[in-house]
Amino acid sequence: MSLTAALKERIRRPSLWSKITTPEAVVPLFKNGMSVGWSGFTGVGYPKRTPIALAEHVEANSLQGQLRFDLYVGASSGAETENRWAKNNMIDRRYPHQVGKDIAKGINEGRIRFADKHLSMFPQDLSYGFYTKDKPNNKLDIVNVEATAITEDGHIVPGASVGATPEMIQMADKIIVEVNTALPSFEGLHDITTTTLPPNRKPYLIMRASDRIGTTAIPCDPERIVAIIESDHPDNTGENQPEDESSRSIARHLIHFFEEERDAGRLPKSLLPIQSGIGNIANAVIGGLADGPFDNVQVWTEVLQDTFIHFFDSGKLTFATATSIRFSPDAFRHFYDHWSDYHNKILLRSQQVANSPEIIRRLGVIAMNTPLEVDIYAHANSTCALGSRMLNGLGGSGDFLRNAKYSIMHLPSARSTKTDPTGITGIVPFASHVDHTEHDLDVIVTEQGLADLRGLAPRERAPLIIQKCAHPDYKDMLMDYYERSLHECLKAGRGHEPHMLRNAFKMHINLMEKGSMKVDKWD
Amino acid sequence: MSLTAALKERIRRPSLWSKITTPEAVVPLFKNGMSVGWSGFTGVGYPKRTPIALAEHVEANSLQGQLRFDLYVGASSGAETENRWAKNNMIDRRYPHQVGKDIAKGINEGRIRFADKHLSMFPQDLSYGFYTKDKPNNKLDIVNVEATAITEDGHIVPGASVGATPEMIQMADKIIVEVNTALPSFEGLHDITTTTLPPNRKPYLIMRASDRIGTTAIPCDPERIVAIIESDHPDNTGENQPEDESSRSIARHLIHFFEEERDAGRLPKSLLPIQSGIGNIANAVIGGLADGPFDNVQVWTEVLQDTFIHFFDSGKLTFATATSIRFSPDAFRHFYDHWSDYHNKILLRSQQVANSPEIIRRLGVIAMNTPLEVDIYAHANSTCALGSRMLNGLGGSGDFLRNAKYSIMHLPSARSTKTDPTGITGIVPFASHVDHTEHDLDVIVTEQGLADLRGLAPRERAPLIIQKCAHPDYKDMLMDYYERSLHECLKAGRGHEPHMLRNAFKMHINLMEKGSMKVDKWD
Repeated sequence: MSLTAALKERIRRPSLWSKITTPEAVVPLFKNGMSVGWSGFTGVGYPKRTPIALAEHVEANSLQGQLRFDLYVGASSGAETENRWAKNNMIDRRYPHQVGKDIAKGINEGRIRFADKHLSMFPQDLSYGFYTKDKPNNKLDIVNVEATAITEDGHIVPGASVGATPEMIQMADKIIVEVNTALPSFEGLHDITTTTLPPNRKPYLIMRASDRIGTTAIPCDPERIVAIIESDHPDNTGENQPEDESSRSIARHLIHFFEEERDAGRLPKSLLPIQSGIGNIANAVIGGLADGPFDNVQVWTEVLQDTFIHFFDSGKLTFATATSIRFSPDAFRHFYDHWSDYHNKILLRSQQVANSPEIIRRLGVIAMNTPLEVDIYAHANSTCALGSRMLNGLGGSGDFLRNAKYSIMHLPSARSTKTDPTGITGIVPFASHVDHTEHDLDVIVTEQGLADLRGLAPRERAPLIIQKCAHPDYKDMLMDYYERSLHECLKAGRGHEPHMLRNAFKMHINLMEKGSMKVDKWD
Repeated sequence: MSLTAALKERIRRPSLWSKITTPEAVVPLFKNGMSVGWSGFTGVGYPKRTPIALAEHVEANSLQGQLRFDLYVGASSGAETENRWAKNNMIDRRYPHQVGKDIAKGINEGRIRFADKHLSMFPQDLSYGFYTKDKPNNKLDIVNVEATAITEDGHIVPGASVGATPEMIQMADKIIVEVNTALPSFEGLHDITTTTLPPNRKPYLIMRASDRIGTTAIPCDPERIVAIIESDHPDNTGENQPEDESSRSIARHLIHFFEEERDAGRLPKSLLPIQSGIGNIANAVIGGLADGPFDNVQVWTEVLQDTFIHFFDSGKLTFATATSIRFSPDAFRHFYDHWSDYHNKILLRSQQVANSPEIIRRLGVIAMNTPLEVDIYAHANSTCALGSRMLNGLGGSGDFLRNAKYSIMHLPSARSTKTDPTGITGIVPFASHVDHTEHDLDVIVTEQGLADLRGLAPRERAPLIIQKCAHPDYKDMLMDYYERSLHECLKAGRGHEPHMLRNAFKMHINLMEKGSMKVDKWD
């Protein structure tokens, strides 16, 4: 294929120019059963042209179910790629996270073997050979990465995410690079580290969000690059979820809590580095901080959403580091147009570093994430509705909540079903799937209120969570569950964390059978 | 009180000699409602004379229930102290771990408010002020520590454990030191660090088990030492639990697994630093390693038990670090008699460092712990029988299992009830309490066999765990649960982690009602 002027500028190693080709030309490299790695994280920085060409190949030749892959991506990629693959039955395994209707469908219908893993741990386990242990060469067969430049040394400059790409490249047998000339080069925005194996690992010498410990591009053996493809597809991000009254209430409760902690001398005036998840509550919290009383705030997080631009522009955010920038198309345009306002205030790191327990604990991060449900003792379900149905996966919630100084979960107290506007309670007797344990959470907050669980025993937590956080439609029902459980368990000499196991999932069963979690009575 | 020759030798700061007194003299310092910290970890290095004097005071004056304390100890202390306090209703709160019949009884009968916390996190949360946030001075009222020496600077040299003592001393309003002259001075065996607060924390520059980063004694403001008491009470440790055929089988499965990993190039010939819990399985595994094919092994663990002496003597163990040495009385005598053989091969650190996620992950530790039960998808219950009855607590299992390179849980496949020799299954449909999630465990092993879960989706894990690990009496029953769940959930489009929530705890309910977990049928 042709060496365009744009490509020539981006690929600074002339010996690689001969590898420029088309997506169609690489399709035959992919064989059924191969393990394939993609760059990308939260739907940015993923390869587009090759996955789409493969999907078209399958569709044109009716190869659905005959060309299937183990697909590894740091987190989620774009719907037009992994979701289309799922629809075409091209995914056998998918680790360690996903977002997409057809992928989730394939997982829940038993066609896709999925497991989520803490996002800090996935690239490490990949480097350990845990995912390739049954492969003769212990490699990922093909790794497909998007770059915004290739350096003189043949090293890869990613785009708006780093994710697990460094480890993918380390573990790759063959590498296909898509150079995206529609994006600006992100060179200088990354702090790249690779994974060494124990017993020879070293500390991450990061003491603040802005510390650099790595390189600006991903080391890559040019001999393993088998093809380079020009791409001009933008990242297929949608709009961010808008705030609503409920998420703004949650944000107000939280900012009030931070003020109290600051006044008590437990939080500095500039807070501590903030981690905030994805979604409308996270947006409201970051929006609230942008208008709030804290200055010189730093962010140590997984993903930057649109509201971080507002936070920067407020002058209150001095530095943000993440593994991915997931802006809406409009916010990306603003970011590119005002590059010089932001580029010295942002670093993108690998997900192993962004989500590193070592650094999160050292920095004393304030971590905030949204679960599906939390139980009355503070076990949280982030992944499986009704204990079984996978939604998106765990992501980095475990990395942050286990290691943060403040481990906070925020959620709406109730959600609607088809027949009941408050048919699903966020506070349940027993989490139908446990991703985070009572040993990990400090604070639960809903639009109803905030429960500070620090230093409390289970028998103190339950009434507090119910009173502060549960929706009024569920308060009595939950209190009744707790009191009956307490009575029975104290009598039986097992009153530490009282439960009636026979009723533990009664609300969930009611939801399956009657479309609402409201139960009439417990026995 | 008298300055004995032994005390004079141990207390090298003469200005402290005037503070020598009797346990009876300090009893009036303790007021109802105070927060009290003790040194100690796994029943060694705890203060003895003061707690016993207080218990005697309560017993002599019938003050049961009128002199109650919040009691903080790094982990467990001796039965003659905390258990006696529990029996006398002297404990209101107890964090973050405990071992003792009367304490557990008090917790489960609702008299003692207990919560367990990851042992690495407890001292940190203490330093953050999370446990003293309702105290006017943000301090622990009285901290009672055992020392084997006090240096010229007034710094404390602990005995056979470090635990949370550095942070206790940092957070103490008043300090009472018991200098134990019946033990040798442990000076030089410790590597002491204290806790700094974020955002100014630094990396732990430890790259191997033998690396020193701290001091040999705990910094302590001598002005806060209000009393010094001589003690000659030994640590009240019992015998270690002996190995049996079941634990030896587990050890054989594990050592075979390590050999396979070494042969596949995923483990060095000297293994990686070993963490091993307490109990007969841990004893068998360490015994197996002492007789096994791996040389130059290092240990990075929480507690050293008797078998480590055998491991050292085999010449295969080069260095071991922990936060506590919990030997039986005989092994302690051997250790003291052969001090010069061991003292250069052991370091004791604070529990925050011994259990540090940062270091455990960096070193690539092989972590092995025993749960109560594991479910078919690899969620584990380490703390609460039947979901509610507290046994001992979480300890450091979460610190190690979350961060290790190899996260291994070992347990017997079945245990007996009064009426059924295999009435309790170790493998259950749904863990009745979740302390460790499916995202954390790599390997489950019982005397029946070993299930290697790395890279497997939930639908692959369940049949494998049942087939390899479950007791034959339960295999069909569990497989039936899994297959029925699979059928129902696939049909309903929620087949990621199939469950029948209405039957999830049926085995546990059966145990409560009929004394055995064997169920006749599922519906």
